Amino acid sequence: MKKNKTILVFFGISGDLSKRYLIPSIYYLSKDKDFFEEFEVLGIGRKKFSEEGFKKYIQNSIINSADYKNDFINSNISKSTDENEIKKSFLDKFSYFNLENYDDLKSYEKLKNILEKSSFGYNTQIIYYLAISPKIFYPILENIEKSNLNEQKSSIKKIVFEKPFGEDLISAQKLNDIILNVFEEKYVYRIDHYLGKEAIQNFLALRFSNYIFEPLWNNRHVDNIQISACEDIGVEDRGEYYDSSGALKDMVQNHLFQILALIAMEAPIKLDSEKIRDEKIKVLSSIKPLNDDSWDKSVVFGQYDSYKEEKDIKKDSKTETFVALKLEIDNWRWSGVPFYLRTGKKLKEKGSLVVIEFKSTPKILYNEKSQLETNKLIIKIQPNESIKMQFNIKSPHNDTQISTITSEFDHKEFFQMKTPKAYEKLLLNIINSDQTNFPRWDIVETSWKIVDKLISCRDNCPVIFKYKSGTYGPKQSEDLLLKDNKKWHDF
Amino acid sequence: MKKNKTILVFFGISGDLSKRYLIPSIYYLSKDKDFFEEFEVLGIGRKKFSEEGFKKYIQNSIINSADYKNDFINSNISKSTDENEIKKSFLDKFSYFNLENYDDLKSYEKLKNILEKSSFGYNTQIIYYLAISPKIFYPILENIEKSNLNEQKSSIKKIVFEKPFGEDLISAQKLNDIILNVFEEKYVYRIDHYLGKEAIQNFLALRFSNYIFEPLWNNRHVDNIQISACEDIGVEDRGEYYDSSGALKDMVQNHLFQILALIAMEAPIKLDSEKIRDEKIKVLSSIKPLNDDSWDKSVVFGQYDSYKEEKDIKKDSKTETFVALKLEIDNWRWSGVPFYLRTGKKLKEKGSLVVIEFKSTPKILYNEKSQLETNKLIIKIQPNESIKMQFNIKSPHNDTQISTITSEFDHKEFFQMKTPKAYEKLLLNIINSDQTNFPRWDIVETSWKIVDKLISCRDNCPVIFKYKSGTYGPKQSEDLLLKDNKKWHDF
Repeated sequence: MKKNKTILVFFGISGDLSKRYLIPSIYYLSKDKDFFEEFEVLGIGRKKFSEEGFKKYIQNSIINSADYKNDFINSNISKSTDENEIKKSFLDKFSYFNLENYDDLKSYEKLKNILEKSSFGYNTQIIYYLAISPKIFYPILENIEKSNLNEQKSSIKKIVFEKPFGEDLISAQKLNDIILNVFEEKYVYRIDHYLGKEAIQNFLALRFSNYIFEPLWNNRHVDNIQISACEDIGVEDRGEYYDSSGALKDMVQNHLFQILALIAMEAPIKLDSEKIRDEKIKVLSSIKPLNDDSWDKSVVFGQYDSYKEEKDIKKDSKTETFVALKLEIDNWRWSGVPFYLRTGKKLKEKGSLVVIEFKSTPKILYNEKSQLETNKLIIKIQPNESIKMQFNIKSPHNDTQISTITSEFDHKEFFQMKTPKAYEKLLLNIINSDQTNFPRWDIVETSWKIVDKLISCRDNCPVIFKYKSGTYGPKQSEDLLLKDNKKWHDF
Repeated sequence: MKKNKTILVFFGISGDLSKRYLIPSIYYLSKDKDFFEEFEVLGIGRKKFSEEGFKKYIQNSIINSADYKNDFINSNISKSTDENEIKKSFLDKFSYFNLENYDDLKSYEKLKNILEKSSFGYNTQIIYYLAISPKIFYPILENIEKSNLNEQKSSIKKIVFEKPFGEDLISAQKLNDIILNVFEEKYVYRIDHYLGKEAIQNFLALRFSNYIFEPLWNNRHVDNIQISACEDIGVEDRGEYYDSSGALKDMVQNHLFQILALIAMEAPIKLDSEKIRDEKIKVLSSIKPLNDDSWDKSVVFGQYDSYKEEKDIKKDSKTETFVALKLEIDNWRWSGVPFYLRTGKKLKEKGSLVVIEFKSTPKILYNEKSQLETNKLIIKIQPNESIKMQFNIKSPHNDTQISTITSEFDHKEFFQMKTPKAYEKLLLNIINSDQTNFPRWDIVETSWKIVDKLISCRDNCPVIFKYKSGTYGPKQSEDLLLKDNKKWHDF
């Protein structure tokens, strides 16, 4: 019997994403012996590489990744004990195909020949990973179709798209139509790297492998839910992209809405990617539309003070580098519970956090004289993953004085091992044909509908609030919660 | 204005309880400057002491207590910096009254004179603490009454009884009738030192200063509740007492039922000793009576293998050194939830523990293939206090594999200070006239009714199961839960 084989075709192998994330992830996956024996990488790019030079490039990208530097040098991924031998057997898996012009059909035909030679027939899967600018999605798709690189008969072909998936609803629809013309949805993987994060993948397990959360997880017991994704850096050298995008498109449409869906969804009937995504789309479809006249009561746009002085930023830019939202999910479980989302750049701290804030106890007993802290379930997504529960106990020296304490579970401390990185998990998911952690088209489409509406609010917005770098955004973000008598949970 | 004054009259000052617990507790309380200036101790005993010898005895009992040894030597409880001066100012608070014969009315009249001289009138409270064998309760009460030491006009008089409070319902009723003839219930403090333990005092704060527990705290969500109080030692030199008592009277009637009441009670309408005790009595009154024909399905008696060879134990003793019980509380909140209680001597480990075990998730999703661990709230009472929550998360390397983890809150670690000991807290409660942590008569009475019934089961029991020292009691204790498809939570 022939063995299975996975050929990873990375368009954009010399780009930043490949160098920093994809190549080191392949190294991580290759520690699994079965995978090691099966895989092959064909890097594609416009850059000229000698065979030697390309292997050097692959090697450097692993060594430069903080996780694998020493690991690679001391690796034993093949049976050989000779260090050079080991590296060689790994690096031999990588080859390069120089595609100078993404429009050139002939090159795709050459590519087809190469892939056919590498294939083991139907036991082979070929994964086209588009780690390139979305502008080049179109010529690549067109030529994949023309050269018949999408045919599923000789071997399975999957295709992977990096974000952003469209710039608005119309462009996303257009892109999607073209994709679905070339690949069936079941072969399409839209990357949202947040969905590869361990803490996010743990949401469902936390909710549905435990008994205690589900009875509390609704509008009878939850007061509000907060999702924060904060960056401390500015736009850096991504000014051109960012200024045409902004926080809503860059963070809310994808990452924050995905988190929201996982937190708010009903239990799926099975742990299966379609069933899970069926529940996620229900959540997003239940988000209450913004009121045309009073949307500004639930949205705050901000821009950090020095934004317009950054490289490649228009001097009259109205792009938001911060957004805070209050959303409601109009269904039986969540009706009446505000969901507060915020994200931004140049904020005080870097980190992503979900806070489930429970209701207050009645204003009697321990809560009679001084306002007690509420119970909070705090799920930290990054930089490090943890689950905290904030609760109250009495102080040892006084029977009615209450102390608020936090009991914390730290993933790394417990498992005493490296938690796989987002791209490591997502690549493995793609290889295993598990689409759970990839947004399905209906989810992307619904997210864009909401964000398009928000963008039109922004464009008609009389004022984007300036905020000082190193704060938590404009004061109006605090006010958004204050007027509901709530506050953002500190990091 | 005259200051307040507390005169602590310890009957049995030279006994073990006074030496090991009460005197060191007084030292602890005296660190509070206000208390230091107010208190005075009059020790009463049959032993002869010189003034010098008595102070030496007090000093030694503090120095011999592990907590205060160095503390006392380096203490600064008065303004003086001279070490001898300091000890002197503390020890000067103690005086001794030799009462050779507890029946001798004349001695009580002398005692009355002494107390009157010390008193500041109505700003004084006198606390009679009976740290002696219950046999002597009667002559003391009789003579207190005859010598009018109980009159409440010139100063407040309180009286404190050490356990056991009676040997059965009849004797407890008799004792109580006599007490209430001499003191009103509001001046009576029945000690159950478990109620002075921090973790037990924290039950109410944990339940009612947090929102999340109350919605889960009932028969819809709780599968079973376990209360274990295990000792690793045997009867040691208390054979005579223990053989006439046994685990039911020694542990269940008081400590375990008090814990049960705190765990199962409804929220009181106020944090006030009467309101809290009103709720506790409702729980105990709702315990479903044992069925005469089938009590052996819910009770297991055990005796450790070497018990009958211990000093002062009858050779044909049927006294239980272990008991495991399954109780039901027949009310709206708890109907259908088994409460499992166990206590015993010569067990594998020493410790007291309450476990709230929640129901299982449905047998789908993560619970479909392998039986998931249930969620448990684990409250450790001793030797060290902690609150643990056992829950499930996914393993980092596999999306459907679940790991069971425990997030722990350790009192000592958090508060970074000594938690007051049971007697320190209880003495302070008595001084402050807070009866919350002292069983009211109706509670004691109801507990005895249940235990009397259990004792009659034991007396008619064909077999007390032998168990090996160093185990968790007889196998039948495991079976008691096994037949309900449950198991004792390990320490």
